Amino acid sequence: MPAIDELRARLAELSDLSGLGALAGWDQQVMMPREGAAARANLLATLDRLSHDLATSDEIGEWLDELDGSDLAEIDRDIVRVARRDFERQRSVPAELVGERAQAAAAGQSAWEKARADADFAALAPALARNVELARAYAACFKDVPRAYDALLYDFDYGVTGELIEEVFGRLAEGLGPLIADVGRRAARPTERVGIPFEAQRAAVAATLRRLGVSEDSWRVDVSSHPFSEAVSRLDTRITTRYESGGFESLIAALHEFGHSLYERQIAPELERTNLGQGTSMTIHESQSKLWENHVARNRAFAPVLAEELSRGGHAIETGALYSQLARVGPSLIRVSADQVTYPLHIILRFQLERALIEGGLDVADLPAAWNDGMLRLLGVDVPDDAVGVLQDIHWSAGLFGYFPSYAMGCLIAAQLWQQLELDLGSQDEALRTAEVGAIKDWLAENVHKYGRRLDTEPLVERATGRGIDVAPFLAHAAAVVGG
Amino acid sequence: MPAIDELRARLAELSDLSGLGALAGWDQQVMMPREGAAARANLLATLDRLSHDLATSDEIGEWLDELDGSDLAEIDRDIVRVARRDFERQRSVPAELVGERAQAAAAGQSAWEKARADADFAALAPALARNVELARAYAACFKDVPRAYDALLYDFDYGVTGELIEEVFGRLAEGLGPLIADVGRRAARPTERVGIPFEAQRAAVAATLRRLGVSEDSWRVDVSSHPFSEAVSRLDTRITTRYESGGFESLIAALHEFGHSLYERQIAPELERTNLGQGTSMTIHESQSKLWENHVARNRAFAPVLAEELSRGGHAIETGALYSQLARVGPSLIRVSADQVTYPLHIILRFQLERALIEGGLDVADLPAAWNDGMLRLLGVDVPDDAVGVLQDIHWSAGLFGYFPSYAMGCLIAAQLWQQLELDLGSQDEALRTAEVGAIKDWLAENVHKYGRRLDTEPLVERATGRGIDVAPFLAHAAAVVGG
Repeated sequence: MPAIDELRARLAELSDLSGLGALAGWDQQVMMPREGAAARANLLATLDRLSHDLATSDEIGEWLDELDGSDLAEIDRDIVRVARRDFERQRSVPAELVGERAQAAAAGQSAWEKARADADFAALAPALARNVELARAYAACFKDVPRAYDALLYDFDYGVTGELIEEVFGRLAEGLGPLIADVGRRAARPTERVGIPFEAQRAAVAATLRRLGVSEDSWRVDVSSHPFSEAVSRLDTRITTRYESGGFESLIAALHEFGHSLYERQIAPELERTNLGQGTSMTIHESQSKLWENHVARNRAFAPVLAEELSRGGHAIETGALYSQLARVGPSLIRVSADQVTYPLHIILRFQLERALIEGGLDVADLPAAWNDGMLRLLGVDVPDDAVGVLQDIHWSAGLFGYFPSYAMGCLIAAQLWQQLELDLGSQDEALRTAEVGAIKDWLAENVHKYGRRLDTEPLVERATGRGIDVAPFLAHAAAVVGG
Repeated sequence: MPAIDELRARLAELSDLSGLGALAGWDQQVMMPREGAAARANLLATLDRLSHDLATSDEIGEWLDELDGSDLAEIDRDIVRVARRDFERQRSVPAELVGERAQAAAAGQSAWEKARADADFAALAPALARNVELARAYAACFKDVPRAYDALLYDFDYGVTGELIEEVFGRLAEGLGPLIADVGRRAARPTERVGIPFEAQRAAVAATLRRLGVSEDSWRVDVSSHPFSEAVSRLDTRITTRYESGGFESLIAALHEFGHSLYERQIAPELERTNLGQGTSMTIHESQSKLWENHVARNRAFAPVLAEELSRGGHAIETGALYSQLARVGPSLIRVSADQVTYPLHIILRFQLERALIEGGLDVADLPAAWNDGMLRLLGVDVPDDAVGVLQDIHWSAGLFGYFPSYAMGCLIAAQLWQQLELDLGSQDEALRTAEVGAIKDWLAENVHKYGRRLDTEPLVERATGRGIDVAPFLAHAAAVVGG
């Protein structure tokens, strides 16, 4: 077999194993009886190990060497380019270090659960320090990356550096500062107490998703304790939401996950079962979920659709009241329940702290104080204890560093794409009022989704919008939301 | 690492992949959106290929050679013995032949669906002939097996020969003949028209399974178009049933699948993630499902439990009427809806025909006539057309030869085990009246389940009952059912 066919066959296998992992992960959170947990962990670990072996075996290097400089079709050139990158990155890391990180992550997650319950940061500190140490060791495996933190970022967003993020986030914080101060002067954020019955929420989630094109022929919509989406394969999409509040969380989460899934589904079919047939980065992925969350679900023009579906589900609600709930802004302690305007400030704090942890400017012991200072500086919020402060997120305890920025970069890119989409297609207000989203989906397919991993984050944004990552569209959106 | 640890690590991986396959198969039939089908086939094929590669790679042979004659713990001796057998069997078959059989099976299944819909055997004949030819080629790969058909049997029931089955089935047909003639003289079998509402069926299935020990902590009970059970792992058991008739099918199927699953769950935990941690053969597996179907679910003593749970579910039914429905006997055309007494005769027919196909005594073209003759001879039934005759089962079209006998051998062994169980523990009538099945489960665990694959079918039956496979207990059971 020619080397390109050998390589493609291997990549197809890896893609299949990734689909199996998606299925086993989905099942674990949605369907699995709880006593299956220990065996499921073994099963997932075996799958990871086999995938890693297949992705790093010597023959891939031989195929790639053979393909070097050979005359290939355009897609094959991208396949080889990205395969070379993935292969070299994975081969840079010793297997023992991968194992140590997995162990430290598991230990860190257990320690975090207890520490958060007890609001006791000191109890977590040793496990956290171990994860920081191993993340640094991991970063040190990559020789051709500007700085240590960048090596971690590249796992989630290849080519985006800490320096770029620092610059972007600097402009963002600067722009958001006056807006937040303004909001803070006007009103404390009310607690969400809308009281939508779960049955009405369920009916509205199902009906709204149906109107966006979610058909049971190739989607499943289920419930899990944390909403997520998985692409088992291109036409086997699974999203979840949760029904735990009396508010709009179930609807917002469903549309957020819809955005992630639509991305995976609209990748060009010819990239299926190659290494290019998935979202290109966490940042672009998050831009897609945030586009549907911030610019569709929370859009004033879409409020009639949600109000209508809630009413059909048995909960009468006035469109204006619904919109004002979805558009509320106010500084708060907890990232996951923050509003769309203040949310990125929570991320800026985490970015600053994790970068300093990795590059040596901050000790783990000093993290709570730095956290509390940052919350006051960025959001004007006093942190009463670590449980609702530095202990609120699991990421660092699980060894995840370099992941947080994508949450805010995604918000920025979502706004930038939405602005471009409305420049290209005209205002979508009329379409949103009747949930006619076909043109939005097509624009996203053509300008973002179809590329899969053929374009990295920055080139993709440039191709779609004609310029680099920009904060102005998000700031304009935020000002409009705050302005009411 | 010592060779035994290397071997055990590999077997654990294979066990994990098998669990993943079980999950993906379960999901395909129970949860998957239908457009996911094509990608799911790829994913399962990749999983099969990787499992095959891991199961047949050279290093296993090296480990086994190194372990030959070495001093091992008792369980390890069995692990090595069965690993050697599996390895040599799998290595006997060229990869191309495996691929050709998979293709022919897929083509045969498609051809069968159309042929059955059109009642057109001739349209299926070429695809069926191809599957017969490849099954013969497959059988020829095994040099140390008495006859060609035995090589196929051994895939499902190692060590059980066509000669043994012929002898057992001969005695069975002889014993059943007069019983069936007697039934035939008395009454035609009435069509089942009980009219149990689906809601009552669902409630009774759930409640009855709960009383047998099915807890949501480690079981799932779902719906699929064909009832089945899967062991994703020892404590993650999934069974399905179906609600398509107004009769007892949903309850009977649920208890049948419960029997399969209980077997897998009660294998000794120390065999988990080894090559011994699964049911030893299709025949013993079927004996476990049939034990719960024929000797519990259809037992006169258990009828009050089913009647009680149906009544609680909203369908009042008298115990005597319920039992007489479950115990009805009468020759019929279709295997899957046959009663417990005539069922094995359907299997005897299939055994005789498939053995003759494989060993050369019967041409595919002559199969319909041979089928119709056999139905008349064994069951006294005239076959009006091939759709309800030779085309009713998918097995042969999918290349499955040697599988059918386990269905009837399972019935025989179920009766033999049940007889022994009642000899050991006394009559279970009182216990069944209140669904107190703890002692039954324990007896099965101790005498059948715990061994996993440590004992093959015949040694297992001998260990549990003190004698070889016997037809007398089944004939006694059948006579009691027919006698009323």
